[in-house]
Amino acid sequence: MTAPVHAIDVIAQKRDGGAHDRATLEGFLGAYVRGEVPDYQVAAWLMAVVWHGMTPQETADLTAVMAASGDVLDLSDLPHTVDKHSTGGVGDKTTLVLAPLLAELGGTVAKMSGRGLGHTGGTVDKLEAIPGFRSTLDERAFLDQVRAVGVAVTGQSKDLAPADGLLYALRDATGTVASLPLIASSIMSKKLAGGAQSLVLDVKVGSGAFMKTESEARALAEAMVDIGRRAGRNVRAVLSSMAEPLGRAVGNALEVREAIAVLRGGGPADLRALVVALAAEVLDATGLPHDAASVAAALDDGRAYARFERWVAAQGGDVAALDRLEVAPGEAAWTAPEGGVVATYDAEAIGRAVQRLGGGRASKSDVLDLGVGLTLHAKVGDAVRAGDALATLHHRDGRGVDEALAALEGAVDVREAAEAPPLMLGVLGR
Amino acid sequence: MTAPVHAIDVIAQKRDGGAHDRATLEGFLGAYVRGEVPDYQVAAWLMAVVWHGMTPQETADLTAVMAASGDVLDLSDLPHTVDKHSTGGVGDKTTLVLAPLLAELGGTVAKMSGRGLGHTGGTVDKLEAIPGFRSTLDERAFLDQVRAVGVAVTGQSKDLAPADGLLYALRDATGTVASLPLIASSIMSKKLAGGAQSLVLDVKVGSGAFMKTESEARALAEAMVDIGRRAGRNVRAVLSSMAEPLGRAVGNALEVREAIAVLRGGGPADLRALVVALAAEVLDATGLPHDAASVAAALDDGRAYARFERWVAAQGGDVAALDRLEVAPGEAAWTAPEGGVVATYDAEAIGRAVQRLGGGRASKSDVLDLGVGLTLHAKVGDAVRAGDALATLHHRDGRGVDEALAALEGAVDVREAAEAPPLMLGVLGR
Repeated sequence: MTAPVHAIDVIAQKRDGGAHDRATLEGFLGAYVRGEVPDYQVAAWLMAVVWHGMTPQETADLTAVMAASGDVLDLSDLPHTVDKHSTGGVGDKTTLVLAPLLAELGGTVAKMSGRGLGHTGGTVDKLEAIPGFRSTLDERAFLDQVRAVGVAVTGQSKDLAPADGLLYALRDATGTVASLPLIASSIMSKKLAGGAQSLVLDVKVGSGAFMKTESEARALAEAMVDIGRRAGRNVRAVLSSMAEPLGRAVGNALEVREAIAVLRGGGPADLRALVVALAAEVLDATGLPHDAASVAAALDDGRAYARFERWVAAQGGDVAALDRLEVAPGEAAWTAPEGGVVATYDAEAIGRAVQRLGGGRASKSDVLDLGVGLTLHAKVGDAVRAGDALATLHHRDGRGVDEALAALEGAVDVREAAEAPPLMLGVLGR
Repeated sequence: MTAPVHAIDVIAQKRDGGAHDRATLEGFLGAYVRGEVPDYQVAAWLMAVVWHGMTPQETADLTAVMAASGDVLDLSDLPHTVDKHSTGGVGDKTTLVLAPLLAELGGTVAKMSGRGLGHTGGTVDKLEAIPGFRSTLDERAFLDQVRAVGVAVTGQSKDLAPADGLLYALRDATGTVASLPLIASSIMSKKLAGGAQSLVLDVKVGSGAFMKTESEARALAEAMVDIGRRAGRNVRAVLSSMAEPLGRAVGNALEVREAIAVLRGGGPADLRALVVALAAEVLDATGLPHDAASVAAALDDGRAYARFERWVAAQGGDVAALDRLEVAPGEAAWTAPEGGVVATYDAEAIGRAVQRLGGGRASKSDVLDLGVGLTLHAKVGDAVRAGDALATLHHRDGRGVDEALAALEGAVDVREAAEAPPLMLGVLGR
């Protein structure tokens, strides 16, 4: 039973710098979700939140209210439920590796994932590059599979934190996206509703990430860890660099291939290192302590890959097709404008280039070409000569190549000398 | 020709503390009036304006854009056009006196006035207490009368500054009323559209006024004078006290009676003094310099009243009825709770009491009883004994008397000693 609230009083309280209590947020947002408070009142309130911010308790309460606004997954009878969230990068296929790896190491992975939009990809799209893979499971099938295989990944339910969905659309249209408590609560509301007890957050920093500076990323990570703590969840956050795409593959099928390589003990060093770090953190958080070596062993000895095959098969994927995923046959080179050492990539531009090839969405209704993408040949710190191929573009009949190359114009910084920056910048929540 | 603007960019510019140029405001608000920008985007923008304010130039541009959003009265062929605005008081019948007085002294008064809402009355309502008075004139009749009689007062056109009307309604619903540039531009947009070259603003200070402190009132007055200057108008502002109702009469017919007394050289000293000061200021501003003595002479020698009769007759009012305006026959006393000297009244509470009697509106559609109201017997500075009548309530068959007396509970401050505060606290814009 929620006390009735007057929207105008809620707006005025925030406008005047006050903090709402949980009942107020419940009443206000509950009425909004029911259509009893109009968008324009919530829009004014959102701008007042951008202005005055929210206390940690208020942010946690907002998150809890949004999490409770729709379906909440009850995983309480499952052991060591773990989840992972990335704030969005380019070439970020960590979930594909992490999910079976965690299941293999004792975690229960009942994960809801999203689709890609703009320059970032989405796990659900990537999984669909596997022939036959069913990315939408109903709750019963989803939980049955979790119990049987230890891992299942499904597309996000529309009834997951609907208050967040409404607020997010309104923020997008009213210039009120850039508010730390609103960003943190938006992410965490879906994670709380997802039901896992332990959570690791991969907070990306850099040109290709939502948070461009380390201090911004750290503040976001702290806010999310605090929300989790107040909700009784075990949350760790890893700050990781987006000074270049993660690994070498960008594009859906290409990324699955690269994930498989890591699951078999190979693959790019940065991707493997990040997966190992994220796994060790969340296993520790859930009471299954592992060090990097023991996590890496599960990749090297084939256990992680075996679990991956069981997972793929359980969701209808064609395991025999995993070694021959369809990649678009056309190839074009993106070449180094000058010689030297690659100092940094504009990962966001690389993500946009793949979108232009047809591998990403400009709008939610776009249909993807899962076979197109880009393979990086030179990572940050690598020496190149002028005219060397920095990357190969995998295109379909030339579609979008010119636009992709235009997007890549200036997207690399080649210097006389450069070193790869640290991949991981810190861990919060330990 | 206005450049297209993207609402989201306008919101972001204000959110980030920027100042809009006039083209931006024209594009944004023009699109809003045409229904092309939704309320929720404007609501977010309004809160950002409350947050960051507006520069004087921006405020003037906003005002000009709102003034130009609908009908603009062209009075440019008329000599010495003068107008007056009050920020809203209780018992404020100055327009009824000032309009014919200014016309008699060489001004041209083509005035649009509003109706009352809440605890404040409106000139149009008061004029309708005169039998036969037509308070709605079409533009042709209005201007013909102005030319013939030198004065006409009509209800505000719905097409006067429609952008302001839309914004005001949205501000009211989104907690964004209390912003100096928004308040100042709202008032001034209607005055600019009203077309007069010279304007005097009566900015009320005190419990019964919108601005509770002198510093707030002074800031508002400065902002409005500045807007007028930037628009090429001659604007003066008088700060006047609302430590008690103006004069002794509150309620429509009662106020007309009191205005007539002043027009005939009598009436309460405070009302007469304020009228004389406002007249002298605006006449000076329009290039017809008058001192208080020469203005007062036009009240004392019958010229102002004669012009009032011509005005009333021109708008169909029954001049013979002016000495027998209908006042509700019921009488009840509001008595002093203790003996001493009246230090202050809560003018807002007195306005509310008259509203309860049926003389004011709680909502825009309420129909008024123009005969009810209140007559003050003790003004601030007067000695009273416990139980003396502070005021007589004029009611219709007892309607609202209990509620009115309840509203008046605590609305007087009686002390051992007190002095009437100065009625006028300063003049700006000279």
